[in-house]
Amino acid sequence: MATADIGLIGLAVMGSNLALNIAEKGYTVAVHNRSPGRIDEFVSEAKAQGLDGNTIPKYDLADFVQSVKAPRSIIIMVKAGKPVDDMIEQLLPHLEPGDAIIECGNSLYTDTQRRFDYLKPKNIGYLGVGVSGGEEEGARHGPSIMVGGSKEQWHNAEAVLTAIAAQFNGESCCAYLGEGGAGHFVKMIHNGIEYGDMQMIAEVYGVMRDGLGMTASECGDVFKKWNEGPLNSYLIEITGHVLHAVDADTKKPLVDLILDKAGQKGTGVWSAIVAQQMGVPATAIEGAVAARSISSRKAERVAAEGIYGRPNRVRSDVTLDDLEKALLAGKIVSYAQGFAVIAKASEEFGWSLPLATIAKIWRAGCIIRSRFLDQMASAYSKGDASNLLIVPDFVAIMKDAHPSLRKVVAGAAMGEFPMVCLSAALSYFDSYRQAQGTANLIQGQRDFFGAHGFEIEGRGGDLHGTWPSTLQNKAAAPVVEE
Amino acid sequence: MATADIGLIGLAVMGSNLALNIAEKGYTVAVHNRSPGRIDEFVSEAKAQGLDGNTIPKYDLADFVQSVKAPRSIIIMVKAGKPVDDMIEQLLPHLEPGDAIIECGNSLYTDTQRRFDYLKPKNIGYLGVGVSGGEEEGARHGPSIMVGGSKEQWHNAEAVLTAIAAQFNGESCCAYLGEGGAGHFVKMIHNGIEYGDMQMIAEVYGVMRDGLGMTASECGDVFKKWNEGPLNSYLIEITGHVLHAVDADTKKPLVDLILDKAGQKGTGVWSAIVAQQMGVPATAIEGAVAARSISSRKAERVAAEGIYGRPNRVRSDVTLDDLEKALLAGKIVSYAQGFAVIAKASEEFGWSLPLATIAKIWRAGCIIRSRFLDQMASAYSKGDASNLLIVPDFVAIMKDAHPSLRKVVAGAAMGEFPMVCLSAALSYFDSYRQAQGTANLIQGQRDFFGAHGFEIEGRGGDLHGTWPSTLQNKAAAPVVEE
Repeated sequence: MATADIGLIGLAVMGSNLALNIAEKGYTVAVHNRSPGRIDEFVSEAKAQGLDGNTIPKYDLADFVQSVKAPRSIIIMVKAGKPVDDMIEQLLPHLEPGDAIIECGNSLYTDTQRRFDYLKPKNIGYLGVGVSGGEEEGARHGPSIMVGGSKEQWHNAEAVLTAIAAQFNGESCCAYLGEGGAGHFVKMIHNGIEYGDMQMIAEVYGVMRDGLGMTASECGDVFKKWNEGPLNSYLIEITGHVLHAVDADTKKPLVDLILDKAGQKGTGVWSAIVAQQMGVPATAIEGAVAARSISSRKAERVAAEGIYGRPNRVRSDVTLDDLEKALLAGKIVSYAQGFAVIAKASEEFGWSLPLATIAKIWRAGCIIRSRFLDQMASAYSKGDASNLLIVPDFVAIMKDAHPSLRKVVAGAAMGEFPMVCLSAALSYFDSYRQAQGTANLIQGQRDFFGAHGFEIEGRGGDLHGTWPSTLQNKAAAPVVEE
Repeated sequence: MATADIGLIGLAVMGSNLALNIAEKGYTVAVHNRSPGRIDEFVSEAKAQGLDGNTIPKYDLADFVQSVKAPRSIIIMVKAGKPVDDMIEQLLPHLEPGDAIIECGNSLYTDTQRRFDYLKPKNIGYLGVGVSGGEEEGARHGPSIMVGGSKEQWHNAEAVLTAIAAQFNGESCCAYLGEGGAGHFVKMIHNGIEYGDMQMIAEVYGVMRDGLGMTASECGDVFKKWNEGPLNSYLIEITGHVLHAVDADTKKPLVDLILDKAGQKGTGVWSAIVAQQMGVPATAIEGAVAARSISSRKAERVAAEGIYGRPNRVRSDVTLDDLEKALLAGKIVSYAQGFAVIAKASEEFGWSLPLATIAKIWRAGCIIRSRFLDQMASAYSKGDASNLLIVPDFVAIMKDAHPSLRKVVAGAAMGEFPMVCLSAALSYFDSYRQAQGTANLIQGQRDFFGAHGFEIEGRGGDLHGTWPSTLQNKAAAPVVEE
């Protein structure tokens, strides 16, 4: 009776597409869904695509589980949150030791970690898997698949998951990254980086539109051209398409009609919070989240422009070449920050996350796929993965590109263009590449009002100044005032 | 036997100073400490200051509680975290319904809320109180006191707390702000704002030192002068002192010897996380936290400078006047963000936080005290407290000051000066005051890869584009591609 290589529960858009993808790759997949109607629909879809031979529809959960070869791999593809916990409880009585649940939704990594810890003593494997690429095209024809959780059970599902993932130069964009919540953690940071990429593109578009007076279609041409160069990536490509799209009714550029209020579904915020919790600066992600948030307050912005007047678009000598390089430099900083968060998580949770592999499996299938990630994968493969800003291959790009980022940020400041993300990238770079900063003053202030102490080279730390009597702070260092 | 107006447990630096402050204001305070030696020391201190008549040392906890008049107000001044919970449990058996515990440490507001909720059904009041001003001078001679928690019991302690707080033009810098964790929440944001103020000062100092070639003492003179103008504040004042301080050994400026690695104790990070959780942009606080974090990686920074070479300090035409105005403009944005977080928390937790009162009690006693806050208090008292950037009195200042902020940020970009916080302030302002942003492009991208939908004025929301077939997204709007 057990004939399926893998099981899949939850046949909404993404689940169906994953199941069809599995069937197409020659694996037999048992499918189940809470509402039987959806199973019927799936059966028709599979038949229409000639894949019904590899799919086993099961209307009863116990039946469904029994139809999968042990040790079982059961993908669950239900809404994040309580539905996942409920599904785990429903499945548990039917599973045997050694079986595994593979959760492929957008779960918060701490939930995944909790479920992993809960199932481990029961000897049920738990894999929390981040899947990127869109629920239609990506899931159906090859997403990027970030696997975390029970390593032993990963091997039972490895052949299937590797087969259905996107391929880059013959390499699968699916990999096991680490225990517990590692897969969902990496997917979360992927989304945070995606936020940064999109916001930086929007900032550059703003300069083209409002500074260089370009039409949407002219902007689209530029992005199309940039897609042939070092910025080559899915997001740059679709930006070209979006800018070229025309509204059928008015024949106006569609982008000029779309309301400038960005939505967000939470993974950017999660990334920003995690970065703060770990003490890793992720100002590009934070900037992107902030920009979306401000954009959503359209009425407030309209009122504020009424008060301050229209932005005074002082023209700078910024060229399209500068904008291209600024985007590249901003991207390097943003990825440096994102990968620093991943590296820190790896350390903190003992995940040993393979940074080169992460760059590799992001090269195709996912939203941030790009030529750039291939360069990152090569660079990280060569040696130790410290901050991307000091990885030799990227130092060369950055040296060439940062002067343009400066021109763009400076021009934006004078021309009243919002540049939340690109300016955050520049200020991070300038803070990071400066040996002698200004935190000496901050340490002096902190000692003045809070006796927090400071360090002097050659004299050690926890020294104190003799500050004016109004505050009577502790005095330990041989220091006099004025 | 019950003769004390109030009790206080925990006689470390801050607790002792609060107790002496209470005694000096004519109230009788019973004091207790875990280690009796510290009580003896306190008795000597009180005697030395002629305040022993108003202090009642108690070596036994039950005795101590009994010595306070019912309904009792018991201040606990112990380390944040578990010690607070332990102390509550120790006190509970000795308290009677209607009594209150007043916790004056640096607790996380969620802990305070939890304790408040725990004690409420027991009819024990719980006040979580933020105290700012430094544990020596502030606590002893007048801190700013932010009270949250049980309103009924607040009235029992009101006279004492109001008397020991700093006074500004005859008004006490102590106020009841709202239920539960409101007091500690406001204190946390106070600290976040303090981070921003300090970082912006450090950024401006960097331009003086590395751009204008000024000595520490010359920088100190400028801050001393600025303290006479619109920037007048405690932090500007102490910055002047810190910059003027001379090392006794070497006779060099102390600030030039202090290592440029900033420490942080967590309230900045907490503020940033809370702002993210509430969806309120707080990029100035985030920038300040990031800057401290990068500063602490001295070795990495030294290595990076080795790779990229020394910053190329291109000279701009930025003047000291520009720096002063940039600081003022940055401050307005930073406070706008901080108060927006407070306003949002007020709404989310149902606290009805009085923004004008918060500005008022920050005018003296606390670290961010300033003339500026008096202006804020007046402005907020006049009417509804929306974003500070559109409050008339501040619009006028901002209109005058933002051109300088632009010059400073642009000059920093070209001169390779890190300007994490001031550039975050400028980009927030430029995003906020722009009616037509660029999130239309982001919405187009999101619809392209995720079918997230967009809005067109007059046609409603949840519309979709007809995107190239590679992604086959849903098409609902009458839109054609290219």
